[in-house]
Amino acid sequence: MSNQTIYYTLTDEAPALATASLLPVFSAFAKEADIELKLTDISLASRILASFSDLLPADQKVEDGLQFLGELTLTPEANIVKLPNISASLPQLTAAIKELQAQGYALPDYPESAETAEAKDIQARYAKVLGSAVNPVLRQGNSDRRAPAAVKGFARKNPHSMGKWKKTSVSHVDHMRSGDFYSTEQSVTMDSAQTVNIEFVAQDGSVEVKKSLPLLEGEILDSMNISCAKLREFFEASLQEAKEDNIMWSLHLKATMMKVSHPIVFGHAVTVFFKDVFEKYGELFKEIGVNPNNGLGSVYDKIKSLPEAQQEEIKQAIQAVYSTRPELAMVDSDKGITNLHVPSDVIVDASMPAMIRNSGKMWGRDGKAHDAKAVIPDRTYARIYQETINFCKTNGEFDPTTMGTVPNVGLMAQKAQEYGSHDKTYEVAAAGTMRVVDAQGNVLMEHAVEKGDIWRACQTKDAPIRDWVKLGVTRARQSNTPAVFWLEEERSHDNELRKKVELYLQEHDTTGLDIRIMPYNEAIRFSMERIIRGEDTISVTGNILRDYLTDLFPILELGTSAKMLSIVPMLNGGGMYETGAGGSAPKHVQQLMEENYLRWDSLGEFLAVAVSFEELGIKNSNEKAKVLAECLDKATGKLLDTNKSPSRKVGGIDNRGSHFYLAMYWAQELAAQTSDAELAAKFAPLAKTLTDQETTIVAELAEVQGKAANLAGYYNINLEEVAKVMRPSATFNQALASL
Amino acid sequence: MSNQTIYYTLTDEAPALATASLLPVFSAFAKEADIELKLTDISLASRILASFSDLLPADQKVEDGLQFLGELTLTPEANIVKLPNISASLPQLTAAIKELQAQGYALPDYPESAETAEAKDIQARYAKVLGSAVNPVLRQGNSDRRAPAAVKGFARKNPHSMGKWKKTSVSHVDHMRSGDFYSTEQSVTMDSAQTVNIEFVAQDGSVEVKKSLPLLEGEILDSMNISCAKLREFFEASLQEAKEDNIMWSLHLKATMMKVSHPIVFGHAVTVFFKDVFEKYGELFKEIGVNPNNGLGSVYDKIKSLPEAQQEEIKQAIQAVYSTRPELAMVDSDKGITNLHVPSDVIVDASMPAMIRNSGKMWGRDGKAHDAKAVIPDRTYARIYQETINFCKTNGEFDPTTMGTVPNVGLMAQKAQEYGSHDKTYEVAAAGTMRVVDAQGNVLMEHAVEKGDIWRACQTKDAPIRDWVKLGVTRARQSNTPAVFWLEEERSHDNELRKKVELYLQEHDTTGLDIRIMPYNEAIRFSMERIIRGEDTISVTGNILRDYLTDLFPILELGTSAKMLSIVPMLNGGGMYETGAGGSAPKHVQQLMEENYLRWDSLGEFLAVAVSFEELGIKNSNEKAKVLAECLDKATGKLLDTNKSPSRKVGGIDNRGSHFYLAMYWAQELAAQTSDAELAAKFAPLAKTLTDQETTIVAELAEVQGKAANLAGYYNINLEEVAKVMRPSATFNQALASL
Repeated sequence: MSNQTIYYTLTDEAPALATASLLPVFSAFAKEADIELKLTDISLASRILASFSDLLPADQKVEDGLQFLGELTLTPEANIVKLPNISASLPQLTAAIKELQAQGYALPDYPESAETAEAKDIQARYAKVLGSAVNPVLRQGNSDRRAPAAVKGFARKNPHSMGKWKKTSVSHVDHMRSGDFYSTEQSVTMDSAQTVNIEFVAQDGSVEVKKSLPLLEGEILDSMNISCAKLREFFEASLQEAKEDNIMWSLHLKATMMKVSHPIVFGHAVTVFFKDVFEKYGELFKEIGVNPNNGLGSVYDKIKSLPEAQQEEIKQAIQAVYSTRPELAMVDSDKGITNLHVPSDVIVDASMPAMIRNSGKMWGRDGKAHDAKAVIPDRTYARIYQETINFCKTNGEFDPTTMGTVPNVGLMAQKAQEYGSHDKTYEVAAAGTMRVVDAQGNVLMEHAVEKGDIWRACQTKDAPIRDWVKLGVTRARQSNTPAVFWLEEERSHDNELRKKVELYLQEHDTTGLDIRIMPYNEAIRFSMERIIRGEDTISVTGNILRDYLTDLFPILELGTSAKMLSIVPMLNGGGMYETGAGGSAPKHVQQLMEENYLRWDSLGEFLAVAVSFEELGIKNSNEKAKVLAECLDKATGKLLDTNKSPSRKVGGIDNRGSHFYLAMYWAQELAAQTSDAELAAKFAPLAKTLTDQETTIVAELAEVQGKAANLAGYYNINLEEVAKVMRPSATFNQALASL
Repeated sequence: MSNQTIYYTLTDEAPALATASLLPVFSAFAKEADIELKLTDISLASRILASFSDLLPADQKVEDGLQFLGELTLTPEANIVKLPNISASLPQLTAAIKELQAQGYALPDYPESAETAEAKDIQARYAKVLGSAVNPVLRQGNSDRRAPAAVKGFARKNPHSMGKWKKTSVSHVDHMRSGDFYSTEQSVTMDSAQTVNIEFVAQDGSVEVKKSLPLLEGEILDSMNISCAKLREFFEASLQEAKEDNIMWSLHLKATMMKVSHPIVFGHAVTVFFKDVFEKYGELFKEIGVNPNNGLGSVYDKIKSLPEAQQEEIKQAIQAVYSTRPELAMVDSDKGITNLHVPSDVIVDASMPAMIRNSGKMWGRDGKAHDAKAVIPDRTYARIYQETINFCKTNGEFDPTTMGTVPNVGLMAQKAQEYGSHDKTYEVAAAGTMRVVDAQGNVLMEHAVEKGDIWRACQTKDAPIRDWVKLGVTRARQSNTPAVFWLEEERSHDNELRKKVELYLQEHDTTGLDIRIMPYNEAIRFSMERIIRGEDTISVTGNILRDYLTDLFPILELGTSAKMLSIVPMLNGGGMYETGAGGSAPKHVQQLMEENYLRWDSLGEFLAVAVSFEELGIKNSNEKAKVLAECLDKATGKLLDTNKSPSRKVGGIDNRGSHFYLAMYWAQELAAQTSDAELAAKFAPLAKTLTDQETTIVAELAEVQGKAANLAGYYNINLEEVAKVMRPSATFNQALASL
């Protein structure tokens, strides 16, 4: 493994297509600094094939790219540029299997039910590929996310649209006041490594061990419980209040990521809202397999098996409910898709910033935006949105042309906190006690529970916390910006964490730094008071706040979180540079296939590769790499300033055109810089050629637009075939090759 | 002057009448501890007579009680119980003069205009009596205000009504975002004693010295300016926004206390709201003497001199304005009195807490309560109400049965801060520069000003600040409660003050105390977050926040600010114990005259006298005084618990009845206590008599109710005559006399 190597991931859909055009540019430039970019395939298709590699003939076997990168992350040499990939849902997985089978891979079908050992083995192999399977393997470090200077500068000069806030807005957040995770959290720090048991004690005293958890010394273990009864009471009261106050009702969860607990919460919202329907047809629904956790969509889906008259009756019963309830926020008013249709349609960390950006409004049945009661049951994080809403009512909407920025340092490594809780989350089957018992039989934590309660435990290891504190201090120092640890006395977990933060802060020289610890409400208020004065504040947070805040502030500052620089400094010294956010853009692929126009913006890749070069330059004292990095950043800034990012429609500059401009500006910057005469001399001819040939190249790129494009494969693409589509300018290709 | 003497003030109206009944009780009990209560007359009538004492015959001359007490406040022996007095408006003053003339005092009339030297002298003498003339003389110390334990305990058990807050309330505060005092404040601390000049520099360079100010070393001097143009723009924009958002518009100022600046601000609100009328009739209004600073009432008053047809035309023009403007909050919807009729009708420190207590609503034209835009132009203090409103929207209304308390330590001595600015406040006559120049000719501060701007300077002496810091620490220690100094970096004045606070805090042992410095928004939020958890927080504030917060929190906690203990520990070691708040209750006097029923509640006097006894006991090692104090507090608590406070209507226990019960409980407590056997023995017979005779005494007191009562004089009462009315129970009088 060379330490002059950058591992560039081949993923899925739009980013994968863009790679066919962009990687040749990066590679051509990089080799002048003796840097190699190695493409590593972690696409869904590749991951499927790797899972069944032992069953495939030799010529169809593939390297397990994800496993390779996973091992790499544990070494100090790791330098990975990670593009967005598919977190496969079941429909996506089966589509990919079908495509691979059609391409001649003898893969087994996904077994709906798994009775036999063989079926179980197949299901287990596929399960490893499902959902968020890549990030947990690669994110062997904490998170450093920020808006790069070029992006922030561009956003200030070219502000995104920001809805006006009225002082009379009635929008607000509604959350539980008791019985939520927040009010029930307990937390312990292990004073030695040992295995603890999660147990359920039934009312008859019998004990069921749900799970044995090996814990490290210094590891923090939390447990908490949502009362099913109080949750349902809360939904009912919230609905009645919204009805009385004539305000739209809008549920915000994160059922994708909190994939065990939030679908259950979502299901309760569905059955409370439509309680008339579920009371009447509950038994029938059970028979035909309706799962309210999958939303109202599941009802519409499953009743298709019923006689038409009965379907109609149920549909009418559903319609009748609407008149008894407050108006429900819509995901797609044209198609009648409400907030309660599909659990993954409204994802709190994206939906709440969008609401705040849209004057505090959600979309109504009439296709218009209305003030809304945003329902976020658990109070732990709900309150930060209410604080933001109050702030906007009081101070007006944020002004992207002047506002400061809130970078984040997030505790993420080794599945810290709630994001590692899925395998320790239980929907309680009967009244009793959930408890955690240590190796000596001492009860560390316990909760009295009722049937239907949602109990969970969360782990946070010590090493990631120590690294996170270090990263917070480092970022505060490097950017000369105040840093706030978001920790609050009301949370047991935070109190355990705080002890470690205070301890590990002592390991660093914090002279002259402004490092504070604040509860969430105060921290966000402090950050917002500063942001409207144009001042920056680093948020140093746990995993969920990391996730939420790196959507909230970027969306308010930049209009999107896709333009953030997202760095994972690995615990073992390597680095991963993530690009973009918001998925792998299937709609973009569709447009490419129909119109040979790819509107994917590779800005994230430009930014990530620059940091990747810089880091490699520092580690290997490779001065040329540093110059490449600096010039790449300048080129990106110029590309933004001259508006050469992809536009949305045929006729404009698309993804490929933006790559050309990046290459031209980059070459120009390299030719013009004076730090490295050799590089300047090397790139001067390329700069001249690209500058001279700009019109020709742009014309060649434009020529292909408007017709259908043929891609051999969707999930399992053939890069050579894709390159034919994605590199249509002979002049540009030749110029790059001449380097 | 004996240091065993308490000076009990004779004031005006209801409290003066109550004194005729209550003072004999206090005196009878006090003499057992060798304490004398001396009545000192500072009533409006007495102050008028004292002002003209040199012109009156010997038998009509009166002692100048206010001057006497003023001198007393400068001695460590001062122990003054100060009841509410009339802050005379001109109509009240002329009525008092008339009454005195009728009683045979040869006083001159108040001269409307003063041309001659004699008239000027008369006017000057009366001017000293007008307005808030007593407090500035007596308040030779800072302020310590809190809800006594008995009162707080009673309020928790017997909560006042508190309006529910809706999360969808649209009520909010609107304030200027620039051009207000807040944004223009400058501040300097004098490094030596010297006289500075306030100067106006005209555009032609000519300099007018407006005032010479002798300043002490260490004194803080501020200057600030409200832009007239920006103020008027703000009003117009605020009105248009309210119209657009269909919300009621409600102006909140403190024209009584900020008697120079706020009437001008009020006048601008009137002429902007009714700009159509003032544009059309402006010249005419000038001719007939309309002063918009006196409100719309002034228009209705002055147009009476015009022909009826013209009056009608103007009235119609006024009516026509209403349809072009948002609905205006009403002071009295039955009588059509709006928020803009009279500048003293809506006083921010009382009106905003009332609005917050009333679900965030003000009264509309329809006699119903509606959400409102509360307009408080200057941002300096406006923001605390917005913070409170946001808090109530988010957390619901406060719960008087569980909420904590926010006592106040206020910087008040020697006319600190804005409350001493009246003689240094100017409505600027022409564009130019207002500046402060030191003895060496250096410009300390300056503001570019336009015609109509309101410029002012404020002084804050060093000694009061030092004492205030000490009082803050003392109260934090004595009550073991966190104390927050409300100071913010955004204000120049506060930055000067903060230096002194940090310096003077070092003079005290603050070990184990929780003393913080916070900006206003944070401080009130911190206090409110604690208050809903039942926790107490001392607010250590400047003069205006003292005034505002000692209405806001008491009204939310207790339903009134009249039940607060209000202590002025004098700079020179004495103490003043102020009772009640909210004026001297002329309506109560009216009820007494019509129905011989006085509903005035002497609770404030009970509380103040107890502290007065206690202080005297400590200073003179008078153990009996301490026992009297303790037992008086217990008696007050019992009186509250047994609901023996005055009720509002004939047939209940009135002021006199409550005095009887206080005496009975007090005697019982004294007889039962074991600290001082002599006192117990002394009071046992009285306790027995009063307990035995309860029915008789209550009957005697009830018997007089319902008929008209004759008081000889309203302003200049005759205490002996009043005593005949106020002490109708022979049994009770005899029991007291037997002590």
